[in-house]
Amino acid sequence: MTKAKKEYPLNQVHRLLQSGPVVLVTTSQKGKANIMAMSWHTVIDSDPPKLGIVLSSDNYSFKILKSTKECVLNIPTLKLAAKAISCGKSSGKDVDKFKTFGFTALPASKVKAPLIGECYANVECKVVDMKMVAEYDLFILEVVKVWIDPVKKRPQTLHHLGGDKFMVAGKVIRV
Amino acid sequence: MTKAKKEYPLNQVHRLLQSGPVVLVTTSQKGKANIMAMSWHTVIDSDPPKLGIVLSSDNYSFKILKSTKECVLNIPTLKLAAKAISCGKSSGKDVDKFKTFGFTALPASKVKAPLIGECYANVECKVVDMKMVAEYDLFILEVVKVWIDPVKKRPQTLHHLGGDKFMVAGKVIRV
Repeated sequence: MTKAKKEYPLNQVHRLLQSGPVVLVTTSQKGKANIMAMSWHTVIDSDPPKLGIVLSSDNYSFKILKSTKECVLNIPTLKLAAKAISCGKSSGKDVDKFKTFGFTALPASKVKAPLIGECYANVECKVVDMKMVAEYDLFILEVVKVWIDPVKKRPQTLHHLGGDKFMVAGKVIRV
Repeated sequence: MTKAKKEYPLNQVHRLLQSGPVVLVTTSQKGKANIMAMSWHTVIDSDPPKLGIVLSSDNYSFKILKSTKECVLNIPTLKLAAKAISCGKSSGKDVDKFKTFGFTALPASKVKAPLIGECYANVECKVVDMKMVAEYDLFILEVVKVWIDPVKKRPQTLHHLGGDKFMVAGKVIRV
């Protein structure tokens, strides 16, 4: 699936992220990959692209990210909703999430964490600043590579409204 | 319009914000209020609620926020799209945006910056941390009061996709 995707310009990655989609964060340590669902992220700069993500220290992925300083933000769409949310409800401490939820791990190009093949976009990131981690669980990431499904023109991304409620991306307008 | 709104629980404010809507940031200094449009924000904590917002130093509102340490994030819906976007394309240095775009300024309860009456929700905030402002234009805000239109059940919020393209909030699902 990585083969069918085309590279997306780094300095346009904010277009994928600033509307606040649910993302699946992948990390990897000692050959073991993990996935978690996350909604708290913002674009911080567009070129070079930087992101801020809030990843609570309660999560299994927190320690891995702090230690490896690498992750991928994978953006799922509506058809992956059930899997993505289940993924967010279990811990990588207990289960292999790729196997349990049937996601395909594909090699990333610049980080060790894998891409999730089924997601319509994959954003490879390196942690560049951890000054705010102790106080706010806030990591500053630099985006180093972005992959996108060239066919999916109007991705039905998921946007968490709290609890079990999600808004699905609606119509696109030009203003 | 503030009268018809009901108070919304502070520790649930992330439900309004984490899906990444375009917000109109109001600030006020020496009796002069300003408005700017913004999409780069994230929830940082839910209770007490903290937000991270990226407000570029190029903006007229940047200096006001840095000096007054107060703002309101007002969330517009589809019917305000044209006004909201026009608002984002002009500078408070040159025009009175409330007057120019026909927005109603209402008094906030805990900050001097006004609420925009026409927006379906208004989030009063105080700046609590500026350590990341010099490097990333990133302000940490604490939410001190939130107002919501009790009638609007499925707000058609706007989500910036880049350039003149905006996604309008679509259907709500439970997963």
